[in-house]
Amino acid sequence: MIITNQDSATATALKDQLVAQNPDLLVFQHAQNLALPTVKTVDSLPIALPAGAQVILNHHAAVQSTRAFHPENTVITTPHSVIGDGGLVIMAGPDSIESADHVAQMATEVHAVGATVLRGGSFKPRTSPYSFQGVGEAGLIAHRQAADAAGLDMVTEVLDPRDVDIVDQYTDIFQIGTRNMQNFALLKAVGAKRKPVVLKRGMSATLDEFLQAAEYIAAGGNTQIILMERGIRSFDNKYTRNTLDVGAIAVLKQMTHYPVLLDASHAAGERALVTPLTLAGVAAGADGFMLEIHDNPDAAFVDAQQAITPAHMGEIVTKARQIHAIVRGE
Amino acid sequence: MIITNQDSATATALKDQLVAQNPDLLVFQHAQNLALPTVKTVDSLPIALPAGAQVILNHHAAVQSTRAFHPENTVITTPHSVIGDGGLVIMAGPDSIESADHVAQMATEVHAVGATVLRGGSFKPRTSPYSFQGVGEAGLIAHRQAADAAGLDMVTEVLDPRDVDIVDQYTDIFQIGTRNMQNFALLKAVGAKRKPVVLKRGMSATLDEFLQAAEYIAAGGNTQIILMERGIRSFDNKYTRNTLDVGAIAVLKQMTHYPVLLDASHAAGERALVTPLTLAGVAAGADGFMLEIHDNPDAAFVDAQQAITPAHMGEIVTKARQIHAIVRGE
Amino acid sequence: MIITNQDSATATALKDQLVAQNPDLLVFQHAQNLALPTVKTVDSLPIALPAGAQVILNHHAAVQSTRAFHPENTVITTPHSVIGDGGLVIMAGPDSIESADHVAQMATEVHAVGATVLRGGSFKPRTSPYSFQGVGEAGLIAHRQAADAAGLDMVTEVLDPRDVDIVDQYTDIFQIGTRNMQNFALLKAVGAKRKPVVLKRGMSATLDEFLQAAEYIAAGGNTQIILMERGIRSFDNKYTRNTLDVGAIAVLKQMTHYPVLLDASHAAGERALVTPLTLAGVAAGADGFMLEIHDNPDAAFVDAQQAITPAHMGEIVTKARQIHAIVRGE
Amino acid sequence: MIITNQDSATATALKDQLVAQNPDLLVFQHAQNLALPTVKTVDSLPIALPAGAQVILNHHAAVQSTRAFHPENTVITTPHSVIGDGGLVIMAGPDSIESADHVAQMATEVHAVGATVLRGGSFKPRTSPYSFQGVGEAGLIAHRQAADAAGLDMVTEVLDPRDVDIVDQYTDIFQIGTRNMQNFALLKAVGAKRKPVVLKRGMSATLDEFLQAAEYIAAGGNTQIILMERGIRSFDNKYTRNTLDVGAIAVLKQMTHYPVLLDASHAAGERALVTPLTLAGVAAGADGFMLEIHDNPDAAFVDAQQAITPAHMGEIVTKARQIHAIVRGE
Repeated sequence: MIITNQDSATATALKDQLVAQNPDLLVFQHAQNLALPTVKTVDSLPIALPAGAQVILNHHAAVQSTRAFHPENTVITTPHSVIGDGGLVIMAGPDSIESADHVAQMATEVHAVGATVLRGGSFKPRTSPYSFQGVGEAGLIAHRQAADAAGLDMVTEVLDPRDVDIVDQYTDIFQIGTRNMQNFALLKAVGAKRKPVVLKRGMSATLDEFLQAAEYIAAGGNTQIILMERGIRSFDNKYTRNTLDVGAIAVLKQMTHYPVLLDASHAAGERALVTPLTLAGVAAGADGFMLEIHDNPDAAFVDAQQAITPAHMGEIVTKARQIHAIVRGE
Repeated sequence: MIITNQDSATATALKDQLVAQNPDLLVFQHAQNLALPTVKTVDSLPIALPAGAQVILNHHAAVQSTRAFHPENTVITTPHSVIGDGGLVIMAGPDSIESADHVAQMATEVHAVGATVLRGGSFKPRTSPYSFQGVGEAGLIAHRQAADAAGLDMVTEVLDPRDVDIVDQYTDIFQIGTRNMQNFALLKAVGAKRKPVVLKRGMSATLDEFLQAAEYIAAGGNTQIILMERGIRSFDNKYTRNTLDVGAIAVLKQMTHYPVLLDASHAAGERALVTPLTLAGVAAGADGFMLEIHDNPDAAFVDAQQAITPAHMGEIVTKARQIHAIVRGE
Repeated sequence: MIITNQDSATATALKDQLVAQNPDLLVFQHAQNLALPTVKTVDSLPIALPAGAQVILNHHAAVQSTRAFHPENTVITTPHSVIGDGGLVIMAGPDSIESADHVAQMATEVHAVGATVLRGGSFKPRTSPYSFQGVGEAGLIAHRQAADAAGLDMVTEVLDPRDVDIVDQYTDIFQIGTRNMQNFALLKAVGAKRKPVVLKRGMSATLDEFLQAAEYIAAGGNTQIILMERGIRSFDNKYTRNTLDVGAIAVLKQMTHYPVLLDASHAAGERALVTPLTLAGVAAGADGFMLEIHDNPDAAFVDAQQAITPAHMGEIVTKARQIHAIVRGE
Repeated sequence: MIITNQDSATATALKDQLVAQNPDLLVFQHAQNLALPTVKTVDSLPIALPAGAQVILNHHAAVQSTRAFHPENTVITTPHSVIGDGGLVIMAGPDSIESADHVAQMATEVHAVGATVLRGGSFKPRTSPYSFQGVGEAGLIAHRQAADAAGLDMVTEVLDPRDVDIVDQYTDIFQIGTRNMQNFALLKAVGAKRKPVVLKRGMSATLDEFLQAAEYIAAGGNTQIILMERGIRSFDNKYTRNTLDVGAIAVLKQMTHYPVLLDASHAAGERALVTPLTLAGVAAGADGFMLEIHDNPDAAFVDAQQAITPAHMGEIVTKARQIHAIVRGE
């Protein structure tokens, strides 16, 4: 429950009366005359409201994410990137850090075709315990060096709240993977940092759940949140690994002020689909995208089937920038 | 099971031997030296195959849809449109035919902003029997007149195999709706005609089921098939009515030679999402799109929430054409 | 919108006033003091309501299905069965009619182990147009003869509204299959008959859609409706063909007065799962079940993998009856 | 890849040759003449196999879970319970620990109606960061005391790998919740313990993913695993919170040797559905079930809507035991 259009003291007094009658109420108070896009009002509260006061009922609990109270875009600035300012941000790199030489080479190549952020996993979330689990801190070191040498930011996934500090020593941007979207201990741990977080949507997370997961990070005081659509689970995964939900991109851009990116590689699961899916996400309004790149995709340690070459990435970037300009009416 | 790379007499003889041993086998024979993109061969059949012969096992049964045997695009020509030739086809109009005057006015307006096909329902498939069911043949007459006056093709849905003949008297293109994608009696009825059919994907149809539904039409000899993605059912329909599956568009363009269009209005279910979803579908490779238009959307008989104005449509068409040109590298 | 707790004349007058102000309102009027389990009332209608009047808003449109206005069970009586009276009805037989001799033998065998209704398809809805489509009217004749000889009722699927009359000449109970749950022309055609209809839930139909499909039949005046849960489409179909939704059985028994049966064969898709799924459905409150039986399952024309032998069926029936008695507290 | 039907030395030598040629191969060796239910053999390996050797390809990676190599049931013994031996185990208690007095009273009451394990959450995984998060260690203490006083085992959820040690000091059985099914750090942490773990199926986890999550625990040496079906996410959650997948229970009992329980409370999300869903799960073959109990359900801190009273539980237990006996043929 949110009380609006009142000065702070009035809103506080109203809130106290309401909470006294129902201790479970979640009440927020906001400045007078705040412009609200869509407000449902009620007039049968147990207390009298001043003229003009508005109460928003049934607002989803992720209040920090909503444009209703934060109409302007959140813009996140890292050493080499500005995310959410209307530009198109490109994060690329290998799925997993394989060796220092390899990631350094990949960094140079993705930088050359437009990336400003170098992705790569040193801690890998694998469905099977017998699959390759990543190279750990040695990978973080190599990843950091490669990013610095190429003039790129670094983004890498953290899987365990106990690893947040060590990852924090190296990375510019944390990544929370799809399987950990509701790993609340982990969300709280990155929420305690003051560093951007890429939060990937859970495989079958509703948009409300996605925003509430983001709210766990925001509730810790860290509002540098980047939402990433990466495909959802549906009834048909024969030809695509997941179903890229471009509608989610469009909705999130309208509902929230956070930057929204997409990862078409995991949605596609198949090299030949990465181009159309990435372009579709940009056309739906994404602020950028992430790509899995490998100079020799078939030899990639993980997800070989969906990795693309730097040259292929270059073609995507060119078209994506053109489409982004059209979408923005530039 | 498909036998390739043999002359017709040899393939026939092989087929007969195989069928004699297993009457359920579905066997196709093809011309010698046909180029096949991906072929799985076997060498343990119950009969000996000549050198060079290939047998494709586990091919989905929709063999007439596959690019493997029909590499070039199917191009469908109607009086005012060419569909599937690399251009971008736009079908627009009201969800349902409301009156002769209204559809005539809508026809003029959608023609002015780029449509070449006038959509509109005279027989409406409604979830509830108490909802408006359409105006019937009077609507077909008004629809035909409006299309002709504006220089547009006509597309309209048919719900009942007993209505196929009467709809055939008026329309240029049949439409099979999402709820009837596996209405096999209806598919056979339009398959007996020699007129284009827009086949909408079922709400939870896999791509294989979608292509096999198309195969029912093709099996009747009617291969003028237009596949239309219109959003699938997922676990989250709070903010979008359905989940637009742009991956399906990309996959279908690769797998099949039929034109692939999208209907973003039904996927979105919400006016503000029609632009981003339509542009996303075009970026994914669609050959065109369908839009629900109403001059006064809030007064539309059906689906008011998702109808857009002709002016809004004009903006979409402009951007969609630019994106289509980029996707095609023009 | 439903007005309750008023005499008929008052309710009618109220309805007329409301409809005059909003022609789209769906208004039902009911007798005074009707007991309603859950009623949401409003007090801000555009007209004044008498004291005690209740209006149900947002009721799903399938008003004829609800226990709110029809608290007692619908009981359907056929020559050899009583369905919905608290007993357990068993429908069994081959998936498709293969020959007169075969169906006659199957009839004898399923009768011996407890069935009172003989199932069997003469018109088969197949995903592929190249799959066996059923034997047509010859099958209906053989099916009828087999049922009569064994002292069983006959249930068979109808796919096409044009076949309803011919099927009506033979069958005791119509069946509408999962792919046709929203084939509204077909629903209206069986709604015009006065004969029981087994309506199978669509593969991804919500319960509201299921009940609205039933309402199409009821709206034609045919309220002898048997709802059948047969498994829904989910994200995992590796080990079961569909996901049997036992919760739907429990909900439907509470919401509606129609008999609710289950078809575990199609949900399982696998012989070894037919017993546990059938027993689970009975434990959830089903009024009966349908089974695919074959004396030589591996030789069945259709769905061989899920057919069970009459002996296997006998074991299921014995346990199902015991569980049914426990559930009913007998 | 699994090599069977060979003595250990031969299998080892074969494995070494295969691994030398492909370092990514997962190879298991097993004793001669092991009975295997379903084996796919190949004869085109890069090395020669001895006569009679069998290689299982494409086996899912959760090899420790399979009955193929562990045909007998895993039986887990705790101070007050034996789980998986053919009996029916009942875990019950409040959703969250509210106070020492309350949990003590609940313990007495659920013990009286058949529970041998007391559930209750001190660390609560909540979708929103602003929802009640549990009372922490004070809850563990109260939970332990209540369980001991009533002669019950204790099961409680752990959310964070850093909490595993402290929870371990109190509990008899760990619980991993649905949102953490793929929290691999947490799975490894409980895998390092030698204490039973209830692993709840993820909301949209396939059965293979579920078993691979269990494999993370088993890979740490902890094979005291209890699988719990708790309802999956589907397209319809209007009348049930989740879709109870009884087919999963039946499949898991056939595929694995681990005990399989169900949690009908979370699947139902609605009090009136807890009885039919629990009985359905037992009829499908579950080894037991978990229930949320509250003496005053409407006042429960969490999930009030689905909590049932101890008296209601007593009725379920009586019927469940009768059905369990029928299913087992006792």
